[in-house]
Amino acid sequence: MRRSYILTASCPDRIGIIAAVSGLIARLGGSILEASQHADAAAGWFFMRYEIDATTLAASREELAAAIEEIAGSFAMRWQLNDSARPKRVLVLASRTDHCLADLIYRWRSGTLPGELVGVVSNHTLLAAQVEAAGLAFHHVPVTAERRLQAFEAIERIFEALAADVMVLARYMQILPPPLCARLSGRIINIHHSFLPSFVGANPYRQAYERGVKIIGATCHYVTEALDAGPIIEQDVVRIHHGDTVERLIALGQDVEKNVLARGLRYHLEDRVLRHGNKTVVFA
Amino acid sequence: MRRSYILTASCPDRIGIIAAVSGLIARLGGSILEASQHADAAAGWFFMRYEIDATTLAASREELAAAIEEIAGSFAMRWQLNDSARPKRVLVLASRTDHCLADLIYRWRSGTLPGELVGVVSNHTLLAAQVEAAGLAFHHVPVTAERRLQAFEAIERIFEALAADVMVLARYMQILPPPLCARLSGRIINIHHSFLPSFVGANPYRQAYERGVKIIGATCHYVTEALDAGPIIEQDVVRIHHGDTVERLIALGQDVEKNVLARGLRYHLEDRVLRHGNKTVVFA
Amino acid sequence: MRRSYILTASCPDRIGIIAAVSGLIARLGGSILEASQHADAAAGWFFMRYEIDATTLAASREELAAAIEEIAGSFAMRWQLNDSARPKRVLVLASRTDHCLADLIYRWRSGTLPGELVGVVSNHTLLAAQVEAAGLAFHHVPVTAERRLQAFEAIERIFEALAADVMVLARYMQILPPPLCARLSGRIINIHHSFLPSFVGANPYRQAYERGVKIIGATCHYVTEALDAGPIIEQDVVRIHHGDTVERLIALGQDVEKNVLARGLRYHLEDRVLRHGNKTVVFA
Amino acid sequence: MRRSYILTASCPDRIGIIAAVSGLIARLGGSILEASQHADAAAGWFFMRYEIDATTLAASREELAAAIEEIAGSFAMRWQLNDSARPKRVLVLASRTDHCLADLIYRWRSGTLPGELVGVVSNHTLLAAQVEAAGLAFHHVPVTAERRLQAFEAIERIFEALAADVMVLARYMQILPPPLCARLSGRIINIHHSFLPSFVGANPYRQAYERGVKIIGATCHYVTEALDAGPIIEQDVVRIHHGDTVERLIALGQDVEKNVLARGLRYHLEDRVLRHGNKTVVFA
Repeated sequence: MRRSYILTASCPDRIGIIAAVSGLIARLGGSILEASQHADAAAGWFFMRYEIDATTLAASREELAAAIEEIAGSFAMRWQLNDSARPKRVLVLASRTDHCLADLIYRWRSGTLPGELVGVVSNHTLLAAQVEAAGLAFHHVPVTAERRLQAFEAIERIFEALAADVMVLARYMQILPPPLCARLSGRIINIHHSFLPSFVGANPYRQAYERGVKIIGATCHYVTEALDAGPIIEQDVVRIHHGDTVERLIALGQDVEKNVLARGLRYHLEDRVLRHGNKTVVFA
Repeated sequence: MRRSYILTASCPDRIGIIAAVSGLIARLGGSILEASQHADAAAGWFFMRYEIDATTLAASREELAAAIEEIAGSFAMRWQLNDSARPKRVLVLASRTDHCLADLIYRWRSGTLPGELVGVVSNHTLLAAQVEAAGLAFHHVPVTAERRLQAFEAIERIFEALAADVMVLARYMQILPPPLCARLSGRIINIHHSFLPSFVGANPYRQAYERGVKIIGATCHYVTEALDAGPIIEQDVVRIHHGDTVERLIALGQDVEKNVLARGLRYHLEDRVLRHGNKTVVFA
Repeated sequence: MRRSYILTASCPDRIGIIAAVSGLIARLGGSILEASQHADAAAGWFFMRYEIDATTLAASREELAAAIEEIAGSFAMRWQLNDSARPKRVLVLASRTDHCLADLIYRWRSGTLPGELVGVVSNHTLLAAQVEAAGLAFHHVPVTAERRLQAFEAIERIFEALAADVMVLARYMQILPPPLCARLSGRIINIHHSFLPSFVGANPYRQAYERGVKIIGATCHYVTEALDAGPIIEQDVVRIHHGDTVERLIALGQDVEKNVLARGLRYHLEDRVLRHGNKTVVFA
Repeated sequence: MRRSYILTASCPDRIGIIAAVSGLIARLGGSILEASQHADAAAGWFFMRYEIDATTLAASREELAAAIEEIAGSFAMRWQLNDSARPKRVLVLASRTDHCLADLIYRWRSGTLPGELVGVVSNHTLLAAQVEAAGLAFHHVPVTAERRLQAFEAIERIFEALAADVMVLARYMQILPPPLCARLSGRIINIHHSFLPSFVGANPYRQAYERGVKIIGATCHYVTEALDAGPIIEQDVVRIHHGDTVERLIALGQDVEKNVLARGLRYHLEDRVLRHGNKTVVFA
């Protein structure tokens, strides 16, 4: 994998955006490995992602960033410039169920997760040994009715102390306080154990069983202040069978959950996801 | 395709059901091509489907039926015995949209629909020419606010006059009167243009677009008195893309709709679907 | 659908391609609806597709083309500029099997095929009535051992007389002469009734049945002089079951074939496919 | 999960098989939870699988087995009777790649593998620590050109000493000696990193990349003396993209491999797979 800079940007749509950005990159000698642009006509918004070969660039990352900043204002552009040599740092929150966590740890250790796991927070101690055996720091932060806000303040401090970029709720069974969701907007990713929009409320696999659906699914989305209503990053489904018990549905669902989370998180870590309003553009 | 009898049956679960039924078939010399049995432990209910080689049977269909009837009482068994040489007769209801109708007509004409189309009812005349060109009778039954019940009485008379076995709502844009649904319980099949349970109400493709889902689907189900809540026979999905407009979602969705309807209807026509409560067992 | 110009181009990779092309479009006032660029590092080749809002362009299609031509030389660029208001013209070749043909006709008539069917050529007369009923010209060109080359000369003349852009082999059971494949390189699309690379030779569904595979598929590809070895545009699969006979495999396979062909052809008609060597880049 | 006996049987097809077997079970008071029968008309062979509620049976497993044995002869029936309380014992063979192994270990530890891992054999030591950390015995058996047969004799002794029921080649990079394959016929399962039948030879992912296919897959099959030609248990695929490098194809392929192996192995462990000739019937 050669080193690259990933530029993502979005702004109100108008003529000349690509020309301005690609012209700037060309003037600095940057070779473009992959580029995608999309105009959402209904929203009047423009989205772009550039993957630039860092080794070809006759400028530092800072100089490139400064050049982008110069033109960003005139386009009212929100942008990010990330360096593949500085992978995003991931803090995982889990409770007792470990299928998503174990999968993320495996991918991280085997080098197929394009990010860095930096620690695991849990409201239980059940997963401590397995996290530590993987060489990861385990932070036990109990969440009680009385000390709920303090618990999430502690989690936010851990997130900041570890200089984490993204918080992953890997079947974390607590609802985050809305102000925390707002502060980390676009940086908290959840895996929902259902195909959204779908069954509302607890135990979607039992509801799926009782409704007699033939397919179940899972949804990876950004967390917002509105529960389970944030921008969707990725979804997938699996076909089920009349002989499957609720327990089997849960097992099949867990496989989908971990695959959908792994894929959605990869898109985020590779800067393939741009949000606008409550939707995402995914340059997969 | 050799001629076969299809026996489907369900009853409260108890010991000896398979032995009784298969013993009876063996005594009449029947060779079994395919057999499936399922006990739903939660519901305490037993389901079975037998495909019997008709050419091996030392008894007529009537004698076989009489023999089954003799044991059915002691098991409180609901059963059906169908003859592959007497394919089910299908009456299709459509409005203006024709993708499902055209697909069913194509399958019927090409010999891959295991049933007989016997006519099309529509509340519009738009599809008349295409239906008649296929050699099918077209029945125009307008449905107006004032003469709604009379319209459905007329449709029911057409269904009976044609000796139809199953009514297929191929994107038929009218809600059937509950008493009709009750009378034809298990004999009306609808294709719903959404992955149930999912978006409620009109225009699910626009809702899917606005919610930013990554997958859309369709659901084939039996019609009951409760709207869109009947037993599900088959579902499927298709992955969509951020560049897809609502129009493209509709086009992609129509492909799923026609495939799901064709598959669900095939299962029904081949007696692969057994209902119990609001669920189905599909011996696919 | 607003009118758009689609620019596709490929060339040896170097710095400044996007800047040059997008700069040119911006100077002519063109608003870009969608743009995708891909560099194949292994091949050292660059691919791009621009969808330009025609209504925003302060230049005619010819002026835009002339401006592109000016820069194309310096990049050794192969390019095309198509107008959504001038959909591609499709000549279909079929033999006796009609599932793909009927599907294309349906999509064309219902307005979801982004191209224009202009005629059907067949080596048999079986499909004549159905083609003509759809308002399409039917050309019967028998292909016999003695007059094979003359037959394909006739087909090529029909293709030219109809000003067709693309020839679709919709389960056409004749092998095209290599010189014809060479002359129409990139303009002949075939649907292969197998998942390539896979079973070699005739009757892949029987081979699949005998090998006991659990999944069968189909492949849409450009036709080249090497049989079944041309650049792949699209593929898909369907799961099969031990109870499925060869006949059922054929029926299931036909559904996949028509869906894969429809999708692959749509990509071609929307200028989403760029070839290089024996591979394709598909900006889907 | 209630305790059950699983009876699988196959024999030449004739009238009365189901009646004989289900009659026998009913006489012993056995309640049947699930039953499937299939006649392969082309092969003239009959297959069945019964799942019997052990708690209802007025006979021991041995008495049931003796009763089956009594009728088996007259039907020339090959049969097995397994006890869900005695899960199959699995010996895993691996080399250096661990994605399949790690997945199997995770499923075993989390209770979703319906079998018992009893040890891991490897021709390398790389995976020793991770295997032992999971509480599993690790057997290092180097395979050298000079001592190849001895190595496999050692592996077979380990298999027998552990009373293993099935040997899983979890990306084990050695070819087993044909006599070993013959002796353990139907008891060795391999995961092949390609969609069979497909690319022949080494590095199928590179071949897939070079051929430009749009879908890659994996195949789980029984090992026979003919390399990669044994009866297929399960297959699956994943869609790929023109931007995917060979490395990404490998990563995507590994996800498919582990899922296909897990599913195929589950079918085997639950006695859902019956072989006949070079094909399988899978009562999934």
